[in-house]
Amino acid sequence: MAFIHDDFLLSNDAARTLYHEHAAKQPIYDYHCHLPPADLAANRSFGNLFEVWLEGDHYKWRAMRANGVDETYCTGDADPYDKFLAFARTVPHTIRNPLYHWTHLELQRYFGIDLLLSEDTAKEVWDEANRQLASMNVKAILDKFDVALIGTTDDPADTLEHHKALAHDKPYDTAVYPAFRPDKTHNLADAKAFAAYVRSIEQASGVACDTLDGFLDAVAQRHAFFHQMGSRLSDHGLTHVPAVDCSESDAHRIFGRAREGLNIDPIDQDKFTVYMMLFFGKLDSDAGWTKQLHLGAMRNNNAWAFERLGPDTGFDSIGDYPQGEGLSAYLGTLAGREQMPRTILYNLNPADNYLFATMIGNFQDGRTVGKVQYGSGWWFLDQKEGMTWQLNALSNLGLLTRFVGMLTDSRSFLSYPRHEYFRRLLCDMLGRDVEAGELPRDLAMLGRVVENICFHNAKGYFQMALGPKYA
Amino acid sequence: MAFIHDDFLLSNDAARTLYHEHAAKQPIYDYHCHLPPADLAANRSFGNLFEVWLEGDHYKWRAMRANGVDETYCTGDADPYDKFLAFARTVPHTIRNPLYHWTHLELQRYFGIDLLLSEDTAKEVWDEANRQLASMNVKAILDKFDVALIGTTDDPADTLEHHKALAHDKPYDTAVYPAFRPDKTHNLADAKAFAAYVRSIEQASGVACDTLDGFLDAVAQRHAFFHQMGSRLSDHGLTHVPAVDCSESDAHRIFGRAREGLNIDPIDQDKFTVYMMLFFGKLDSDAGWTKQLHLGAMRNNNAWAFERLGPDTGFDSIGDYPQGEGLSAYLGTLAGREQMPRTILYNLNPADNYLFATMIGNFQDGRTVGKVQYGSGWWFLDQKEGMTWQLNALSNLGLLTRFVGMLTDSRSFLSYPRHEYFRRLLCDMLGRDVEAGELPRDLAMLGRVVENICFHNAKGYFQMALGPKYA
Amino acid sequence: MAFIHDDFLLSNDAARTLYHEHAAKQPIYDYHCHLPPADLAANRSFGNLFEVWLEGDHYKWRAMRANGVDETYCTGDADPYDKFLAFARTVPHTIRNPLYHWTHLELQRYFGIDLLLSEDTAKEVWDEANRQLASMNVKAILDKFDVALIGTTDDPADTLEHHKALAHDKPYDTAVYPAFRPDKTHNLADAKAFAAYVRSIEQASGVACDTLDGFLDAVAQRHAFFHQMGSRLSDHGLTHVPAVDCSESDAHRIFGRAREGLNIDPIDQDKFTVYMMLFFGKLDSDAGWTKQLHLGAMRNNNAWAFERLGPDTGFDSIGDYPQGEGLSAYLGTLAGREQMPRTILYNLNPADNYLFATMIGNFQDGRTVGKVQYGSGWWFLDQKEGMTWQLNALSNLGLLTRFVGMLTDSRSFLSYPRHEYFRRLLCDMLGRDVEAGELPRDLAMLGRVVENICFHNAKGYFQMALGPKYA
Repeated sequence: MAFIHDDFLLSNDAARTLYHEHAAKQPIYDYHCHLPPADLAANRSFGNLFEVWLEGDHYKWRAMRANGVDETYCTGDADPYDKFLAFARTVPHTIRNPLYHWTHLELQRYFGIDLLLSEDTAKEVWDEANRQLASMNVKAILDKFDVALIGTTDDPADTLEHHKALAHDKPYDTAVYPAFRPDKTHNLADAKAFAAYVRSIEQASGVACDTLDGFLDAVAQRHAFFHQMGSRLSDHGLTHVPAVDCSESDAHRIFGRAREGLNIDPIDQDKFTVYMMLFFGKLDSDAGWTKQLHLGAMRNNNAWAFERLGPDTGFDSIGDYPQGEGLSAYLGTLAGREQMPRTILYNLNPADNYLFATMIGNFQDGRTVGKVQYGSGWWFLDQKEGMTWQLNALSNLGLLTRFVGMLTDSRSFLSYPRHEYFRRLLCDMLGRDVEAGELPRDLAMLGRVVENICFHNAKGYFQMALGPKYA
Repeated sequence: MAFIHDDFLLSNDAARTLYHEHAAKQPIYDYHCHLPPADLAANRSFGNLFEVWLEGDHYKWRAMRANGVDETYCTGDADPYDKFLAFARTVPHTIRNPLYHWTHLELQRYFGIDLLLSEDTAKEVWDEANRQLASMNVKAILDKFDVALIGTTDDPADTLEHHKALAHDKPYDTAVYPAFRPDKTHNLADAKAFAAYVRSIEQASGVACDTLDGFLDAVAQRHAFFHQMGSRLSDHGLTHVPAVDCSESDAHRIFGRAREGLNIDPIDQDKFTVYMMLFFGKLDSDAGWTKQLHLGAMRNNNAWAFERLGPDTGFDSIGDYPQGEGLSAYLGTLAGREQMPRTILYNLNPADNYLFATMIGNFQDGRTVGKVQYGSGWWFLDQKEGMTWQLNALSNLGLLTRFVGMLTDSRSFLSYPRHEYFRRLLCDMLGRDVEAGELPRDLAMLGRVVENICFHNAKGYFQMALGPKYA
Repeated sequence: MAFIHDDFLLSNDAARTLYHEHAAKQPIYDYHCHLPPADLAANRSFGNLFEVWLEGDHYKWRAMRANGVDETYCTGDADPYDKFLAFARTVPHTIRNPLYHWTHLELQRYFGIDLLLSEDTAKEVWDEANRQLASMNVKAILDKFDVALIGTTDDPADTLEHHKALAHDKPYDTAVYPAFRPDKTHNLADAKAFAAYVRSIEQASGVACDTLDGFLDAVAQRHAFFHQMGSRLSDHGLTHVPAVDCSESDAHRIFGRAREGLNIDPIDQDKFTVYMMLFFGKLDSDAGWTKQLHLGAMRNNNAWAFERLGPDTGFDSIGDYPQGEGLSAYLGTLAGREQMPRTILYNLNPADNYLFATMIGNFQDGRTVGKVQYGSGWWFLDQKEGMTWQLNALSNLGLLTRFVGMLTDSRSFLSYPRHEYFRRLLCDMLGRDVEAGELPRDLAMLGRVVENICFHNAKGYFQMALGPKYA
């Protein structure tokens, strides 16, 4: 029997029924990812398995480095096949790491390959995958995986030219929308970079940013432009929400200095972050958007690597920042002002799971079903143990049934099987509970719950327009 | 088969033997709860299922709000049946949340109802429960659940009039005692409220509180009065024990200002808390009491809700306060002064489980068996996953066999089945270990362990007088 | 059937095959422990079971105190048999605590005793064990358990006289090396003790320590001496790596004061720690050593006990120190300077497991296989739940296959079965994954993985010379 078979991860009859009769039939609603809009607009094809699979994957690089593979074969300039071979040699050493499951699930689902990848099988896998890639483009992938929606991640200063092209040409049944990720609007760690960024916002919006008020107007215009492009979603990446207040006069003072590229001390950096985050809360709330908060990453830990390879190359990890007080104050202030948008909280340190899963309960307003969501296992937590913990925390402390479910958060077009993986875990978990008598054996009811978590909850929650096939 | 059946949660033969032959036969020793003494003194009856089940239950409100139920049906002024119906509609959406198990366990154990609650069954459940409630009062409930003792939670300024009535009339086989919860004696966040509180202590004790020494005398008198009323238990709710010292002169200075309603800065608030906590340690130690510390709650997170609905309405959650240093210094100081009482530590953030479970080991004195206890899963942790984690942490880092076991911590008379739930989990856990060969198959020995954890350990530990039926 | 039987902890066929055919056959490579070098050099024999088993075991004392056993029978002056009896009475109360498994595994493996220890069996166990101890010395134990290497833990000022004797006489097939544990070189909490320690380093090295430069030279000479004695391993015990910088001039100023016994404030204490830790990073890197960091212990919590019994008597526990920022800065600085040695990180608070398991991934350099390691469950985590968590965290976030595996970290010669315990857990975990279809059923491949984790990975990683039997 192949390693990835029909009942992979499904340990009981109830789980198998729930998965095959309910979960597997649902479209994919991938509301948050990092796919390049240019690739989507171009309906990109891929020259070989390296391009589509290894080109930008820092998960794989981390595993390869731990396995003693030289940087030449990770981010370096080795030959694509040699890089693939170095990865293939590493795969047998990744047992019990999610890469082992992702790798074989992806080979199976995209290429029908059942071989276990290793040095021995590398050439055969390479040749067969490349043969199939010759006739596989983005459209073929989106069709195959029944993708109803893609939410990309975009800077407010972005022209969204590729999204414009997609909106005009409509090449896919899949709806594609940008998400508004304004981290640079309040990152004052490098004031010179900030000053340059203010100018790019000025240029993109056509609004003068001499003053904070002008800057806020300009940013709001970009938000409105994203709205016009169909977006209903913002996203923020922070270590944590600082537990500080920022007065209007503080904000004006700090902006005035930073816009001139003058150094800003850490406390003022935090103040300005809180000021802007409150501003973005109002923007999202007024426009009926959903806000995402990704909290807890500790980035660029290796000075040697950062200088040579830059960010997002596999040198980030999980931090232990204080999360409770600042997050509570932030959301509490928005609630007090009646400016609290629909919100999804993601944490990176699993030690904070229960804090986050109870935090959402403080801001359910009794009007929007599941208004504040505890997001699916993120980054290092996007694996069986992490997803199980998130589902258990949400179940025990909130309403699993109202969960908007899985997202890929990926830079790769080969990541759609992560939805399948999530769905198998979800069905297995519910099935185990049924078999243990902890849930009633009502598979029709549980099947509806599964269908909702896989697709319908997200569709209703995000309120983004879908194409005719999925509307 | 009914959802709640005889072997609910019992997955193996050893567990079934341990539960049915040992655990199920033990009385309930509910040493810490929030039942209203007035209801106990009055042997209250309940007009309908709403009154006894939904009236003050913020767990249910949180679930209802997340399910999109308007506040009118939670804390608002909707008709009791309509509120019940809104809850009934929410119940099917609570699968995997403890509410789903609690709800059906309570319907079964109090009313013999096996229906799964939903919109469809709401009317039938309502009518049948109300029919039975007509002949059900507090006494009937305490008899039915074989409750040996109830420990309420009371302010030092309380007259304990209801406890006096209970002590005089002895309407139940159940012993009922107050517990001393002096949080207001050191909460200086609102100095005006503190000043008013000092006057209420002055009035209750008849001791002048012009000075800190007077205040301490007055508080000690209240402690002595609680002792006279049979109490042997105090309780403290803190985010964390601050890691600060407070000199005598600091304490006098801070008290002097606060008593006049003058603002106290956060550092002095912390100092005064530590000062009073050390004082209470001595009081409890001298009187042979047990001290409870409930640490880690982050309360009143939603400004909008707090202004309109007040505290304890379902807007609290789990915090991530630094717990180790301050708690160690506090207990270490008491130990150094030989003023360390029997103590139970409860944490709300499960990330602290192992810290707490090792902390108790630092203060076992070799004279009192199980002198420092790691308390059962509290509040958000009072569910299968949270209770399992607590039992595992205690087992791995301390002595499970010496555990004083479960408590309801509840405001409702319908919560006694939580003891049954705990007992089933405990027996299932031990039974699984037996089946896996990780414990010897000596069910007589394990049965005694179960009986001790369910009842005898608490009875011996708290040293509170029981009625003739349980003495 | 005996409680400890051939398939103890092995729940499935795959696990049994992996354990019996692969794990059980591997030698023990015990790279970090606290065995007394004097006992090793003397090939000590033990007068009775108390001497070899209870004499210095704070795990047992903690359990006994929690069980109400007076200090006389723990660290006190009671008769050895009476102390043993007090422990025997406690054992039945330790079910689900690791002591229960350790105790019976050790009685079985050293003495072939299958009795469950209790008051009833105490005398029989005592007599039989003592009878066998008469002909059992250290050499017999090391032979029996097939111990390839022992790494002790030693102060830089130590003369290593016992290691010299061992190197000269070579009484065992087991290689024995010191490890360099320089905690006292930067502990300025007690400046007078530090000043005295500087003098002891001066004496041991023969290098004048009037200045910081002299002190660093002296310490480096001791490091070189340890190297000459075969050591390739250092070890540090810290609550956490402080997140501060220390300039050269700060370091000189602080050392100047401390060397004269003048009080050093906490911030300067932290600075000096960071300064010395960076220095030790370079020393280890230059010499090709492995560095161990043990982080997160909160020690000497009980003032009463510390004054009477001193350190390491069972009054330590798990702390909740901020770990991420300082550790990242420390390792990141070493990486930036290209002075990053092979490193093993151990955490004591399991809430930090995922942080640590991702931290190692930031510093894999692609040249050394598994260069940065996430260490096996330490101290309070050295039990089934803690070891399972560590193995899962490492698996999900790194490469389990490259893991250097288990160590005893013990002060007792009766702890070698902890390797067996670890191996059984490891094999059971892999076997369960096979049975669940989460790993391929390739037991030859998994068998090699097991053999590597049990022995070969460590042998290759530490680069310490082994005796002829194991080379």
